[in-house]
Amino acid sequence: MAMPLLKVYADRLSQPSRALVIFCRVNRIDCEEVTVDLLKAQHLTSEFKKINPMGQVPAIVDGRFKLFESHAILRYLATVFPGVPDHWYPTDLFTRAKIESILDWHHSNLRRGAATFVLHTVLAPFFGLTPNPESAKEAEKLLVRSLKTIESEWLKGDAKFLHGNPQPSIADLSLVCEITQLELVGDERRDRILGPREKILAWMGNMKKATSPHFENAHEHMFKVKARLSSAAGVKTPSKL
Amino acid sequence: MAMPLLKVYADRLSQPSRALVIFCRVNRIDCEEVTVDLLKAQHLTSEFKKINPMGQVPAIVDGRFKLFESHAILRYLATVFPGVPDHWYPTDLFTRAKIESILDWHHSNLRRGAATFVLHTVLAPFFGLTPNPESAKEAEKLLVRSLKTIESEWLKGDAKFLHGNPQPSIADLSLVCEITQLELVGDERRDRILGPREKILAWMGNMKKATSPHFENAHEHMFKVKARLSSAAGVKTPSKL
Ligand SMILES: N[C@@H](CCC(=O)N[C@@H](CS)C(=O)NCC(=O)O)C(=O)O
Ligand SMILES: N[C@@H](CCC(=O)N[C@@H](CS)C(=O)NCC(=O)O)C(=O)O
Repeated sequence: MAMPLLKVYADRLSQPSRALVIFCRVNRIDCEEVTVDLLKAQHLTSEFKKINPMGQVPAIVDGRFKLFESHAILRYLATVFPGVPDHWYPTDLFTRAKIESILDWHHSNLRRGAATFVLHTVLAPFFGLTPNPESAKEAEKLLVRSLKTIESEWLKGDAKFLHGNPQPSIADLSLVCEITQLELVGDERRDRILGPREKILAWMGNMKKATSPHFENAHEHMFKVKARLSSAAGVKTPSKL
Repeated sequence: MAMPLLKVYADRLSQPSRALVIFCRVNRIDCEEVTVDLLKAQHLTSEFKKINPMGQVPAIVDGRFKLFESHAILRYLATVFPGVPDHWYPTDLFTRAKIESILDWHHSNLRRGAATFVLHTVLAPFFGLTPNPESAKEAEKLLVRSLKTIESEWLKGDAKFLHGNPQPSIADLSLVCEITQLELVGDERRDRILGPREKILAWMGNMKKATSPHFENAHEHMFKVKARLSSAAGVKTPSKL
């Protein structure tokens, strides 16, 4: 009998879902991707809540083992699949600790800023919410501060990847996927925020190259949604959607 | 020559700082606790920013190695000090993954709810901020939802510790210290929120017992601040401080 496949529950519009999908593809982890469409509220069905009671993507089922929270899943997969190269989740105690610190920092800083900004500029109406310009403004501040922190703290000198590592870790993957969602807010806002961040842009390029073509593939769906958002709202006023 | 001592930069008013102090004491980790007084803005001095550029507590310096983010620090200490019992950060792959999931979940749920609630009810004025009742209300909702999730998801049946583990992990420690800060908002609000949560209360009792007397010691300072808040504002209106 064949081993039961690893099931990955994901929506490629969701940044932690994309990180997970890219990780599995790059590392040739045999898995079945099950789409949970957020815009169709499939994450709220009782069927999906049996997979993840939090009603969020991503989540995995590995045999009888269920897990949610993308960072926890990435750590688990990097540990359980012997074929995953060490640089993704280094066994060296000090390097790992630095990566854990970035992963933890991410939640209340970059993620909180980026996700709240995207929600309160373009996505809110699709989730039945009213975008709050004050929240968008606050979120943009946190987002910009977080991007500056990444540059000054983890991309010192000519660092190719976070913490100056020569190859990417799960922290690079999670954070870069978080930042790429800024495509959704339209080119004007994206350029205002990312334009001045040269180190961030170079690092994103490094990450894309290191995971090609899986990075582009996993982001195709997001670019389609971006095109729909732009044509529906006019490039300059996606917030009026 | 003696080994350079581990330095722990903490303010016992800060819940992740308390978790770290308790962890070190319970596991007899030889360390020097350096107080960084948040209410005196010592976390914003250029001297402390050399320790943690984020200007937050807790942080550690272990020889030449610096680290911030309490969860990353707890993982590091549990791994680097051979005397720390396995239950704090289990090497079993599946148990560890479940604990990682709780630790990750914590940031955007329990912590965000509890810390924002305490800030916008009693602490804001001490940081030069105006408390926002709307933010406090939103935060209380997230907090209550998070407490219910802990009960339904991680304290099933007669679970003594999270995920039904017989002994506490770093996730128990982090989350319980987060919840104990509700002392600061006054007995009325605390009872409104924690009163109905029997499983949470029993679990907090288990945690206190498992780490006694270090738990009480580390919380003494917080109770002193609570007393000051109550006497300054009258028990029922600490928000008017
Ligand atoms: N910290 C979680 C975040 C998961 C998350 O926020 N997922 C979003 C999509 S990006 C979701 O499912 N949202 C639906 C909801 O919360 O109702 C992780 O990294 O997995
Ligand atoms: N996720 C961080 C949170 C650290 C944190 O928020 N520290 C607070 C005290 S509880 C602090 O230093 N606040 C001062 C500030 O942010 O300016 C951790 O777990 O270490």
